[in-house]
Amino acid sequence: MVRAHPAVPKMAKEKTFKPSKELPLGFVDRQEKELLIRDFVISNIKEVMIKYGFQYLETPSFEYTDSIGKFLPDKERPDEGVFSFKDEKKWLSLRYDLTAPLARYVAKNYLELPKPFKRYQLGTVWRNEKPGPGRFREFLQFDADYIGTKNLMADAELCVLISEILEKCGLTKKDYTVKFSTRKLTDELFEMLEINSPDRKLQILRSLDKLDRLGWDEVEKLLGKGRKDKSGDFTNGANLTTDQIKTIKELLKKKIPYVDEKYEEGSASDIRKIIENLEAFQFKNYAFDPSIIRGLEYYTGPIFEVNLNFDVKNSKGQIVQFGSIGGGGRYDNLVSNFGNFDCPATGISIGLDRLVFALMQKKDFKIKTSRPVVICVFDKSQNKEYVRILNKLRMSNISSEIYSGEGKLKKQMEYANKIGSPAVILYGEDEIKLGKATLKNLETGDESSIQIEDLVNEIKKLL
Amino acid sequence: MVRAHPAVPKMAKEKTFKPSKELPLGFVDRQEKELLIRDFVISNIKEVMIKYGFQYLETPSFEYTDSIGKFLPDKERPDEGVFSFKDEKKWLSLRYDLTAPLARYVAKNYLELPKPFKRYQLGTVWRNEKPGPGRFREFLQFDADYIGTKNLMADAELCVLISEILEKCGLTKKDYTVKFSTRKLTDELFEMLEINSPDRKLQILRSLDKLDRLGWDEVEKLLGKGRKDKSGDFTNGANLTTDQIKTIKELLKKKIPYVDEKYEEGSASDIRKIIENLEAFQFKNYAFDPSIIRGLEYYTGPIFEVNLNFDVKNSKGQIVQFGSIGGGGRYDNLVSNFGNFDCPATGISIGLDRLVFALMQKKDFKIKTSRPVVICVFDKSQNKEYVRILNKLRMSNISSEIYSGEGKLKKQMEYANKIGSPAVILYGEDEIKLGKATLKNLETGDESSIQIEDLVNEIKKLL
Repeated sequence: MVRAHPAVPKMAKEKTFKPSKELPLGFVDRQEKELLIRDFVISNIKEVMIKYGFQYLETPSFEYTDSIGKFLPDKERPDEGVFSFKDEKKWLSLRYDLTAPLARYVAKNYLELPKPFKRYQLGTVWRNEKPGPGRFREFLQFDADYIGTKNLMADAELCVLISEILEKCGLTKKDYTVKFSTRKLTDELFEMLEINSPDRKLQILRSLDKLDRLGWDEVEKLLGKGRKDKSGDFTNGANLTTDQIKTIKELLKKKIPYVDEKYEEGSASDIRKIIENLEAFQFKNYAFDPSIIRGLEYYTGPIFEVNLNFDVKNSKGQIVQFGSIGGGGRYDNLVSNFGNFDCPATGISIGLDRLVFALMQKKDFKIKTSRPVVICVFDKSQNKEYVRILNKLRMSNISSEIYSGEGKLKKQMEYANKIGSPAVILYGEDEIKLGKATLKNLETGDESSIQIEDLVNEIKKLL
Repeated sequence: MVRAHPAVPKMAKEKTFKPSKELPLGFVDRQEKELLIRDFVISNIKEVMIKYGFQYLETPSFEYTDSIGKFLPDKERPDEGVFSFKDEKKWLSLRYDLTAPLARYVAKNYLELPKPFKRYQLGTVWRNEKPGPGRFREFLQFDADYIGTKNLMADAELCVLISEILEKCGLTKKDYTVKFSTRKLTDELFEMLEINSPDRKLQILRSLDKLDRLGWDEVEKLLGKGRKDKSGDFTNGANLTTDQIKTIKELLKKKIPYVDEKYEEGSASDIRKIIENLEAFQFKNYAFDPSIIRGLEYYTGPIFEVNLNFDVKNSKGQIVQFGSIGGGGRYDNLVSNFGNFDCPATGISIGLDRLVFALMQKKDFKIKTSRPVVICVFDKSQNKEYVRILNKLRMSNISSEIYSGEGKLKKQMEYANKIGSPAVILYGEDEIKLGKATLKNLETGDESSIQIEDLVNEIKKLL
């Protein structure tokens, strides 16, 4: 029976209609090797989170749109950068990060929570942005946050935490640097340049955040009259004067702390405290870098990013501008948006897909991908005999299967080779009579006749 | 600085606007205990999947709407039961199961895949249905599928596989039953009752699928004139005659195979083969049950469900009609919708949130929730001393933290008790001079003075 295809009723009536086999841009299928490495990374992260005293939490994919606000890089897009639905009366959106939902959760459960509240969360986030090479619209994040503390020890500890995770995953200190700055630096810059409009400030921050991806010349256009990208789309600029742009460039180039007595309680204080606290942890693998900006609006204090120091190549073998694999910062006003309580906070986010992509290039993880031993089928009426062997293997935790298709022996061998099976078991009429199976090693091609009771041991030797 | 809230620009300008702290109906926050049990279940499932020779795959949350079609229970809803977005030219939808995206994946990669192709996948699915108590709009599923085989051994093996998973999670054979039937049974029923319209057939199947939740009397209304639910919403009925409804009732009550010579190649053959194959696996924990229906349209052959045999209570302590924690069936036409290839298939899906909910009631898993030892802060200028202790503990993999808030000692003790910390470390001016810390066991209240170098061992004893 051919079923109608109700989502496209008009076309479904024509028998020639075939639905799309393609994926929407910005979404991908992920294969076993990547997923197993990701599982390995996730289990490392969870271990470190527990060791550091964080508590496990999961919030849902959807929130009321007004709960998570819109603090997105691509403010200019008509759909506001998020996926949203009208639900009877109110708008719902898919979360674009794990921080805004955490703020909602804390506000909802404020009285019951310990203070500070330390939580970790693993989850998919979505951005309804223009997709492009290496720019996805769905990605997996792992976050750790401190809610309810002004203490900059927390911010520093997050930098230590992410480095412990990276090293547990096989990276060395040479492979990465934790860079930091503080949002107060740009706040002071705006004061100096007499830029007061929040929207304009955000536009400038988002332009500067594109520095590592676009380079200074393109960012300069975004700060000035505007920029046309490769596809021909034009983005309006921030219309800063040449002098203003020059001042910004000077600031970003300084690789030493920007200290102005006037701002002793501002950026200089943040920078000094973060360095002191990192040193208390005997952590050396950091760098102050005023070009660290972070694109999200909600940051209020120290901000940090983790950059990799080795080349990452795309699928064509070209070295790519990889950007950071994680970062975060302090957001002292996000939770208090929900009610009349003061709730300073800081957090870090790890981009799991990006980290896994980089790790796959750096190290051979030797992730064990157990492919099953295949028991070939000569005669379906002998199923009970095949299952007897299968049960023996599986009882000994050997990945194994009876060939489940309809093909003859040649097809079965092709199948076993295609899935990368280490061995096949041949157990035809003659073998059943003798009580011995033939074990064929698919790597060497060797065949041997083995008593059923010895099969498990022989296979274990072979694996 | 109070930030503007751009998603709701008009209200954001009024200082009194507060975004919602609540979640949309049908979505929930999940806490540590549930998440740790879920991780335990997931790792068991993954182990079994590897042992049975399945390959790991992940498809994205979104598909083109026309790729996943619409095979949903709530066809009558205007938004078709899925969350959809217009994306430039085409519609995208969040997947409502993991099967339809698998069919798209197989069609896209048909030539490269082994045949049969056995894959497993873990993922969130969404249904834009009317939420209600215990009815969520987002849930986590774990699926295993055989693609490219007509062999009913595959269907039987899926029933064996799910039982192995359940037993690995701590259930006994008494705790669950794998029930099965075949979609051919209802196909034959429709032929007998001369019901030919695909839409009407689907409406009847979906009504029957609600049997365990609503009971026969309510389902009878859905088969007849229609039904008003508790909220007052009216669902149109299938308008069957009293005689037709009586015939259906008779069939569903029969707990023995429905065998009609006329259909020897149909339901009777399916049922006989499934039983033979289950017996070949020496699997006894099954029951043929013609009231197993499954609400999705795409099934074409054997269908199965796993039911729990123990009481499950809701948050109010009331025993609830729990329904199945997993199920699946054969869908021989779904993949071939995409192109001109014959691609029979069968699969099973485990509802992870439901399974975890039930397991939490059945067994005390004694899931270890490591809460950190808290190092109290007397004087921030001594941070280096605190960190020295912290590093020692963490090097020995002891979950630990320096109190990260701003409170005095009393607040710190309250915090440690609130998070369920096993012990606090007191290391004030006097203790630092002596080189001894005070370790306070928060369960017994006992305090002891301990040399720094002995701290790790003493804490390990205490844990």
